[in-house]
Amino acid sequence: MTNGVEFLSRSLLDPGDNTPLYVQLQKRIRELIVTGVVSEGTRLPSTRKLATDLSLSRTTVLGAYDALRAEGLIVQRPGAGTIVAAHTSTGTTRKKHSKKEPAAVRLSNRGNFAVESPGPATNRSAPFQLGVPSLGEVPLKIWHSLVTRLSKEVTSRDLDHGDPLGYRPLRESIAQHLATNRAVYCTADTVVVFPGTMYVVDMAARLLADEGDGVLFEDPGYTRARRVLQAAGLRTQPVPVDEQGMQVTRRDRSKPPARLAYVTPSRQFPLGVTMPVARRKALLDWSVETDGWIVEDDYDNEFYTSSHETPSIQGLAPDSRVVYAGTFSQSLFPSLRVSYAVVPKGLVSAFSEMRTLLDGHSNTFNQMVLSAFIDEGHYGAHVRKMRQRYGERREELISLVNEKAGEFLDVQRGNGGMHVVVHLRKGISAEEVAREGSTLGLVLPQLARYYQTETAANGLLLGFASASSYELRKATDKLVSVLKRCSRS
Amino acid sequence: MTNGVEFLSRSLLDPGDNTPLYVQLQKRIRELIVTGVVSEGTRLPSTRKLATDLSLSRTTVLGAYDALRAEGLIVQRPGAGTIVAAHTSTGTTRKKHSKKEPAAVRLSNRGNFAVESPGPATNRSAPFQLGVPSLGEVPLKIWHSLVTRLSKEVTSRDLDHGDPLGYRPLRESIAQHLATNRAVYCTADTVVVFPGTMYVVDMAARLLADEGDGVLFEDPGYTRARRVLQAAGLRTQPVPVDEQGMQVTRRDRSKPPARLAYVTPSRQFPLGVTMPVARRKALLDWSVETDGWIVEDDYDNEFYTSSHETPSIQGLAPDSRVVYAGTFSQSLFPSLRVSYAVVPKGLVSAFSEMRTLLDGHSNTFNQMVLSAFIDEGHYGAHVRKMRQRYGERREELISLVNEKAGEFLDVQRGNGGMHVVVHLRKGISAEEVAREGSTLGLVLPQLARYYQTETAANGLLLGFASASSYELRKATDKLVSVLKRCSRS
Repeated sequence: MTNGVEFLSRSLLDPGDNTPLYVQLQKRIRELIVTGVVSEGTRLPSTRKLATDLSLSRTTVLGAYDALRAEGLIVQRPGAGTIVAAHTSTGTTRKKHSKKEPAAVRLSNRGNFAVESPGPATNRSAPFQLGVPSLGEVPLKIWHSLVTRLSKEVTSRDLDHGDPLGYRPLRESIAQHLATNRAVYCTADTVVVFPGTMYVVDMAARLLADEGDGVLFEDPGYTRARRVLQAAGLRTQPVPVDEQGMQVTRRDRSKPPARLAYVTPSRQFPLGVTMPVARRKALLDWSVETDGWIVEDDYDNEFYTSSHETPSIQGLAPDSRVVYAGTFSQSLFPSLRVSYAVVPKGLVSAFSEMRTLLDGHSNTFNQMVLSAFIDEGHYGAHVRKMRQRYGERREELISLVNEKAGEFLDVQRGNGGMHVVVHLRKGISAEEVAREGSTLGLVLPQLARYYQTETAANGLLLGFASASSYELRKATDKLVSVLKRCSRS
Repeated sequence: MTNGVEFLSRSLLDPGDNTPLYVQLQKRIRELIVTGVVSEGTRLPSTRKLATDLSLSRTTVLGAYDALRAEGLIVQRPGAGTIVAAHTSTGTTRKKHSKKEPAAVRLSNRGNFAVESPGPATNRSAPFQLGVPSLGEVPLKIWHSLVTRLSKEVTSRDLDHGDPLGYRPLRESIAQHLATNRAVYCTADTVVVFPGTMYVVDMAARLLADEGDGVLFEDPGYTRARRVLQAAGLRTQPVPVDEQGMQVTRRDRSKPPARLAYVTPSRQFPLGVTMPVARRKALLDWSVETDGWIVEDDYDNEFYTSSHETPSIQGLAPDSRVVYAGTFSQSLFPSLRVSYAVVPKGLVSAFSEMRTLLDGHSNTFNQMVLSAFIDEGHYGAHVRKMRQRYGERREELISLVNEKAGEFLDVQRGNGGMHVVVHLRKGISAEEVAREGSTLGLVLPQLARYYQTETAANGLLLGFASASSYELRKATDKLVSVLKRCSRS
């Protein structure tokens, strides 16, 4: 059996630590006891001896022993002095643990949807990487001048909890921007600030649907959204996508009807097609007939090519059953963590209360800065600039692919956005190209990966937003070399 | 039937708007059509006529008509010219809506737990208000000098997505702080940054338990946490609390066993008692025997009175099945929205992936600022100062109550914290006192409100953290007058 004394005499106290010495000593002895190093019944040295060994005042040691007694870790036994109390060592507990951890970690069924293998970690700076905005072009100087200026204006009132719906002036800036640019019917009262669009999807799913309820989901569609909905306990019902987006009429008609429909109508992800007004109306009618709700993810709404601009579904009827979601992650930068939803009047209080319950609201100061950034015109200017840049890069990539890889690839003419879809001519397997490409550092997501159902799709997604002309050219050359290799095999 | 022409000729284009004129015209006409103002079959004016009416170039009008044709909103009919296409008006849709909204808003069953009436809105600056730290004492100047300094150091790499577990240097600062001050076994690898402790509770519930699973819950306990767990579909099983906290041995033993236990051991909320080591070990043993998990909410861990300081449950066994949660909302300020969890190694990746799925991570810049604030010693200094202040205010309030209201109230000596519990002598009803107090602007939460089961508890919670001596004295006087009135009735 271990003798406590040696351990204690070796346990040093930290002079830098400004907790009282007796508390430090109490902590060290406690550690030895609870970790089972010093076991039950061990006799502790007398206060006088320990004081000498550690060159502490006896009062300090007495203080520590008193505190440990108060904790029930040690007891005074007449004749035997101070000994470690019975049933305090976690030795047994620890053995039990050791047998189980970490093997025993059993997640919930819904939890397993959330942690479903996310695939290989991707390199954000790799050529063709998806969804990485051109961060080098964000006007950092302007942003930080605002940060500096506004931080002086913060008062202690701004330190307390803010509005769960978001900082009011920011909601006004967003409402105005959306009404003007996206034909979204909204006022600051129906705009809610969120840390991300998937958080909006999750909250809508939890507020409006129960475990096992169905949700109409685009096939192919945004895999991350599918996992969010499944982690919320919903059954995603794949609805085929054609050149007009989700084929509402081909939805699952089993009873009970789906409670939700998740759609990306402005630029369907991943195919990039735009849903025409007639079909948007069919979806609205579905929502009215079934008491269902539409979650409209307008994820990169700023980067349309204006000739194709179409109004939001939400805006097609003033009282539509639509939760509209958008984000600043693509149009400004991801680490800001500011997105937004426009929710029907009848749902505002529900969103507000659930947000209050879960995480209160988003950090106030960032919202103050973003609000000023929008109101002073910097956001509009940045978006216009990037819309043009992305348009140019898109055209550049398309002509590069046609020119250099036309014999292998068909470019699908989508609508703006930050990536293009290319279909491989028969004889070449997208899977093989993706695998081979990764050996050259290319990130080439396969179109087939975005389907929930079996598919013959044999295509790839090529991102271009954050690449320079030079990088696009180099990457395309690499891609061509891979295609050549794969077509031969 | 409406004639489109008048409307169109009246619809003005906004010269300030820098979208191309033809797009602006397209939008205006679209609005008239989709809102049903101009109905199906209406003949639109010729491009030439409209150009003249609105003094626009004919090219502009042609561009708008082409775009509208592409959207399927108008059609060219030989002989009849350009007319509004069939089935485009949302007139019918809107009628259906008007009948339903907003009455038809039906939340999910779980959603109803989230929005369960939160009780009367409370005035954060009212006397005795709970859980409002003393924001006037936060060192704003230091904070903002850090904001200004660090904002200059931000590069475009900091604008991209950050680590879902949190900004690494901040996690290191937190790990060191917890190991030293809370005897928590952790490294930066097991610390996860969150926007709030309830978000930690929600994620743990979703990752570790399924719909209908049980969770041991303190009775009385933290009502907000109970709603979070219920909104996540869990059944909260009330476990009585005595002067040693949750009576683990008196838990519900029905099968299957509860998957989780939610506890506030350092200072039980609302009673303020501290759970001794022996009972903490019993809880650890429960978790091992049942494969259950403990969620340890150390919500205001900084404000203990050191003689009562007890190690965290998490720290009692190096591989304990504990998710430990703490926050900077109480110790620094709420609008920062930074809290943290220490999770078992085996769960780190699950938390990381679910966070990535739902909202990515917390804003990066705030984490940079907080990390510097801690590392440069400002956090420790602030906490030590506030610990003393709150201790003084607590003693002051207790002696005020004993001196002025001793005949009506018994003060329950708790352990530090930011509120005290007072029990009413028989003959006076807490409910009546709370009601009467509110007429004088006093916020007096009733102890009974924190019970899930029937209770005879007849007490009130009095917050003191943000009140000056003067305010405490005035508030106590008001309380006494209320008590006198209620004791007579």
